[in-house]
Amino acid sequence: MVVVMAPDATDADVAAVVARVEAAGGEAFVSRGVSRTIVGLVGDVEGFGSLNLRGMPGVSEVVRISAPYKLVSRQHHREMSTVWVGPAGHRVPIGPDTFTLIAGPCAVETAEQTLDAARMAQAAGATLLRGGAFKPRTSPYAFQGLGEAGLRILADVRAETGLPVVTEVVDASDVDLVASYADMLQVGTRNMANFALLQAVGSVGRPVMLKRGMNATIEEWLMAAEYVAQRGNLDIVLCERGIRTFERSTRNTLDISAVPVAHSLSHLPVVVDPSHSGGRRDLVVPLSRAAIAVGADGIIVDVHPDPDTALVDGPQALVDADLRALAAAVRQLPPLLGRRPAADAVTD
Amino acid sequence: MVVVMAPDATDADVAAVVARVEAAGGEAFVSRGVSRTIVGLVGDVEGFGSLNLRGMPGVSEVVRISAPYKLVSRQHHREMSTVWVGPAGHRVPIGPDTFTLIAGPCAVETAEQTLDAARMAQAAGATLLRGGAFKPRTSPYAFQGLGEAGLRILADVRAETGLPVVTEVVDASDVDLVASYADMLQVGTRNMANFALLQAVGSVGRPVMLKRGMNATIEEWLMAAEYVAQRGNLDIVLCERGIRTFERSTRNTLDISAVPVAHSLSHLPVVVDPSHSGGRRDLVVPLSRAAIAVGADGIIVDVHPDPDTALVDGPQALVDADLRALAAAVRQLPPLLGRRPAADAVTD
Amino acid sequence: MVVVMAPDATDADVAAVVARVEAAGGEAFVSRGVSRTIVGLVGDVEGFGSLNLRGMPGVSEVVRISAPYKLVSRQHHREMSTVWVGPAGHRVPIGPDTFTLIAGPCAVETAEQTLDAARMAQAAGATLLRGGAFKPRTSPYAFQGLGEAGLRILADVRAETGLPVVTEVVDASDVDLVASYADMLQVGTRNMANFALLQAVGSVGRPVMLKRGMNATIEEWLMAAEYVAQRGNLDIVLCERGIRTFERSTRNTLDISAVPVAHSLSHLPVVVDPSHSGGRRDLVVPLSRAAIAVGADGIIVDVHPDPDTALVDGPQALVDADLRALAAAVRQLPPLLGRRPAADAVTD
Amino acid sequence: MVVVMAPDATDADVAAVVARVEAAGGEAFVSRGVSRTIVGLVGDVEGFGSLNLRGMPGVSEVVRISAPYKLVSRQHHREMSTVWVGPAGHRVPIGPDTFTLIAGPCAVETAEQTLDAARMAQAAGATLLRGGAFKPRTSPYAFQGLGEAGLRILADVRAETGLPVVTEVVDASDVDLVASYADMLQVGTRNMANFALLQAVGSVGRPVMLKRGMNATIEEWLMAAEYVAQRGNLDIVLCERGIRTFERSTRNTLDISAVPVAHSLSHLPVVVDPSHSGGRRDLVVPLSRAAIAVGADGIIVDVHPDPDTALVDGPQALVDADLRALAAAVRQLPPLLGRRPAADAVTD
Repeated sequence: MVVVMAPDATDADVAAVVARVEAAGGEAFVSRGVSRTIVGLVGDVEGFGSLNLRGMPGVSEVVRISAPYKLVSRQHHREMSTVWVGPAGHRVPIGPDTFTLIAGPCAVETAEQTLDAARMAQAAGATLLRGGAFKPRTSPYAFQGLGEAGLRILADVRAETGLPVVTEVVDASDVDLVASYADMLQVGTRNMANFALLQAVGSVGRPVMLKRGMNATIEEWLMAAEYVAQRGNLDIVLCERGIRTFERSTRNTLDISAVPVAHSLSHLPVVVDPSHSGGRRDLVVPLSRAAIAVGADGIIVDVHPDPDTALVDGPQALVDADLRALAAAVRQLPPLLGRRPAADAVTD
Repeated sequence: MVVVMAPDATDADVAAVVARVEAAGGEAFVSRGVSRTIVGLVGDVEGFGSLNLRGMPGVSEVVRISAPYKLVSRQHHREMSTVWVGPAGHRVPIGPDTFTLIAGPCAVETAEQTLDAARMAQAAGATLLRGGAFKPRTSPYAFQGLGEAGLRILADVRAETGLPVVTEVVDASDVDLVASYADMLQVGTRNMANFALLQAVGSVGRPVMLKRGMNATIEEWLMAAEYVAQRGNLDIVLCERGIRTFERSTRNTLDISAVPVAHSLSHLPVVVDPSHSGGRRDLVVPLSRAAIAVGADGIIVDVHPDPDTALVDGPQALVDADLRALAAAVRQLPPLLGRRPAADAVTD
Repeated sequence: MVVVMAPDATDADVAAVVARVEAAGGEAFVSRGVSRTIVGLVGDVEGFGSLNLRGMPGVSEVVRISAPYKLVSRQHHREMSTVWVGPAGHRVPIGPDTFTLIAGPCAVETAEQTLDAARMAQAAGATLLRGGAFKPRTSPYAFQGLGEAGLRILADVRAETGLPVVTEVVDASDVDLVASYADMLQVGTRNMANFALLQAVGSVGRPVMLKRGMNATIEEWLMAAEYVAQRGNLDIVLCERGIRTFERSTRNTLDISAVPVAHSLSHLPVVVDPSHSGGRRDLVVPLSRAAIAVGADGIIVDVHPDPDTALVDGPQALVDADLRALAAAVRQLPPLLGRRPAADAVTD
Repeated sequence: MVVVMAPDATDADVAAVVARVEAAGGEAFVSRGVSRTIVGLVGDVEGFGSLNLRGMPGVSEVVRISAPYKLVSRQHHREMSTVWVGPAGHRVPIGPDTFTLIAGPCAVETAEQTLDAARMAQAAGATLLRGGAFKPRTSPYAFQGLGEAGLRILADVRAETGLPVVTEVVDASDVDLVASYADMLQVGTRNMANFALLQAVGSVGRPVMLKRGMNATIEEWLMAAEYVAQRGNLDIVLCERGIRTFERSTRNTLDISAVPVAHSLSHLPVVVDPSHSGGRRDLVVPLSRAAIAVGADGIIVDVHPDPDTALVDGPQALVDADLRALAAAVRQLPPLLGRRPAADAVTD
């Protein structure tokens, strides 16, 4: 059940709704959108009917949820959202007017490798730095990331380059730690249905990049986003990264249609990960072009100064020549689709 | 086993190889490529070893096939092929230098509907007309197409518009009939592994558009193309039309990566069918843009003058407004990728 | 549209219905079931409405098809069907009261190999011999079967052992030839949607084993069966042989649930192919047991006297020790499920 | 890297190995198997080479891990394992000699409903009670379980019936709480790759039931089990619960082959969940029979005293008539496969 507040509702109005719900044993999650505030209710929905929430000051509407997601739906929010990432002075938009290149090493290995990769990324037009400090690995014997030491490296490279940092968090208990370093929290494909983690990143006040589960339907992906939104955080960017099929020449099958389908169902921005979907370096540039052309709001790409020694996913990291082709695509194609490169849209 | 003839081999040299193989109880299929001729052998491969084919005049090489396909492989044919469709005066290229729009009604219903659709297609920049006279339908109670009457309509519309015709053939015994009307034969997704049909279309002297089976790996698709090539016909265009996955918001999942992957493995042109992969009108233009951007050599699109009355696949046929967007994409994007629209490349 | 005849309708009644439909330009296909006859109509269904078929002698009902299949549906045919295979004196049932073991070599290679395999099959309790003379192969360079020479070997082995023969047909133009040798025609997984072939085997007067397409839904499988039934042949046995998924430790994923699901939707018998679904010898006996336990009406199993030299699918052919385990399962388990081994049910 | 201790190694020997690894900055996880103890090392594997672990007292072997999993592999542990669940006096085996029925409500709703379901389960031959207090739900607006109140109900019902309790844990931070009530911890399909959770359940001293991810390969499932084992807990039972495919008549596709495949690769017991794989009540008994016949070590089944009012997954819960059929299957079939019902094997 969701309480939609009127555009002129005051903070006190919202607080009163929350208080009444909590007094009845329920939980209330406040989501402040651009134009209005929404309060999501969890608990004894039948019982809430007797609270007369609709009659309270500032309440515009009380809606029973029939669709499986609501806060992230376009049905009640026709205008596409823009999510801003980074501190004042370096705020990078991801949304309908721009095209954002996010790039960096799959895994943070050393300060030098991370800085080199960040420089490569920046030269190609990237405005956000990606890099993993906590790596979810299928095998327990694989490199699991540097942990907090990796986060510190990312923060240092941010200081050096000015690039805000996107990095993955894999456990609810790490969210506060990761959020203390990162500008945007990434939830990976294996954790898309880790609901405790979704709720934790929804509560911490950082934008979230939510990767699609490798076997999740688009509807399930949006329900996962709803878990984040319900905690009051609507700064969510969806990331399509390929689904699992029978085809064996690529690591996953990039579901390029997911971009327009998600855009038709949700107001959230959608980016594409061409590196992990194909798992092959030679596919990254063509798939990046396809992502721009299909209408994605950005891409997130692996780069590495020396892919052959990479501890994780080296075979898909871009090298210099590819980066020039990528940079050209990121400059030329978005304007044809009515977007400007995000590099020109960073605000201060 | 494959006999690669020298560039200067004569017809008599080729005939001698064929004769020797047939005398030994084998079958020999001659494929004349742009630069050289290849003879594929089927039968008692061990026995062929004693025929001393390598020593015959004009023979450059005798290769045991270890890869599952060869004639369509890029390994022995680095340069990308161009397939020309249509009669002298209206020859339309599909290949690396151009981008070809193929459009028309999913099913031929009436002369008027087909002509109207062809006019719409042409106005959008199409240089080839698609249209089905024989329709493979999952249910035996669904409309199966007009058969030969439909072929006659297509021929009439070609006479009227100048657009060469691409149409599907569903049974080996119909190949001669369909080839007598059509400029290009299409093998549909359900028949990709109908080997008798593949061999029949390989023998009839018309270019072939081979759709990927909805559950076929890219390797299996190339082996299906090899069945056609082995009959001496290398004028094959591959068509990616979506694979079957768990995702339910689209009819199939367009495997956009299949375009660069197939290009890396084979010299054959690859086109994309954005209409059948998504099964939704609102996805056709975005997916068409993605197809151009990823490097496809063309697209094949459903158009219908009145989609709401269409007997087959109306929900995915483009209407006027979409066609203008498609026409713009087909004009603007290919030049960025070094291609010119095929409309400018029709030869006489 | 389907005309259901009354139980006491005469042949003349049926012929009159057919004549009236054909006079109106339609096609009529007569299916004689155990208890009643059904006439399926194809053509201008709207126009048929004016023929007043319902008023003709012997007509019980005229039904517009809303479900995508009807003749094979349980909705109008609650009782499960038994299909009998083989000539008088060797008629083998496949149906709800029995459990039928079908076994033999994947491909017929030599007379000796085929006879040896048939003896192995018979010793294990098989009452039908399988064996392929026409092999649909993914690669054009793979062994394609012996053709008619293979059919002759199968006929000879039938004469020697008394086992009726099940063999595959891959092209509509071969149906008469194969039917002149075989007791049951098999349509393989790659041809499940080869509608011309389905119609041809529906017209030739032999029971049909219809394998599920490796990517077909159960509903599509039943529609394929409807294509056969619509030609007047209701002697159809469905064969589940595994579907294509992302799992790589097995060649296909046996969809064991398909057996009870198909039984709930259709009156046709369902058998399981444990050899091709797993593609591994060590899985054949466990999967056979599972098939019996889930309620299958039979299984079809590869055996080979010397699997290591087999030209096709050797790795999955059973050897002697496995066959003893299989024989034990086929004896012990079916009685617990209310079935007797088909070996005890062969009629003369 | 794994240190395999000699059969006669003492606790002090093991402790010395652990101490030396930790002194070098690594982590060491001790797994005590039936016949020997294994110490898994995580950290700077290259550096460990200089510790001369092989020369320490009680060390039999030091193995570099090349396979992606080792502790759960059959390669070093040929004999199949039995996992015992429950307190002294009510220890229930899951392993090669028995067949174990685990049953109960999908979600704990009330004390009465849970007790009624437990009585139904027990009457059908169940020796372990399943029931969810923490429910991972795709939609944030769906019932999420009673939490600790549900755990208390389960404990009460255990006291009343003597049935040890299997229940799901969805977040690493809940593991201690859930373990304080439950006899066996379940990790659900959505959390199979939640590595933090796997490590937490591996450390808490309770047997674990690890459901296969709905899109996980069998190899990935075993690597997930390795995460648990590496923390010193080898009491792991694998649970096959269906994978996601294109087939739509069932909620998931039960991969019945996964049972013998997992048994061939791992010494861990494997059970099947016929309720969640099909998602249909009419499939539960046939799929249970198939699971027994294919060689599963047990099944886990939803029962509910009043399925039509169930808050979660009512459509698949068994009712009385089905339970009698299930009870018969559980009595009759396992002995044919050399197993006795676990009900006869509970120890005190």
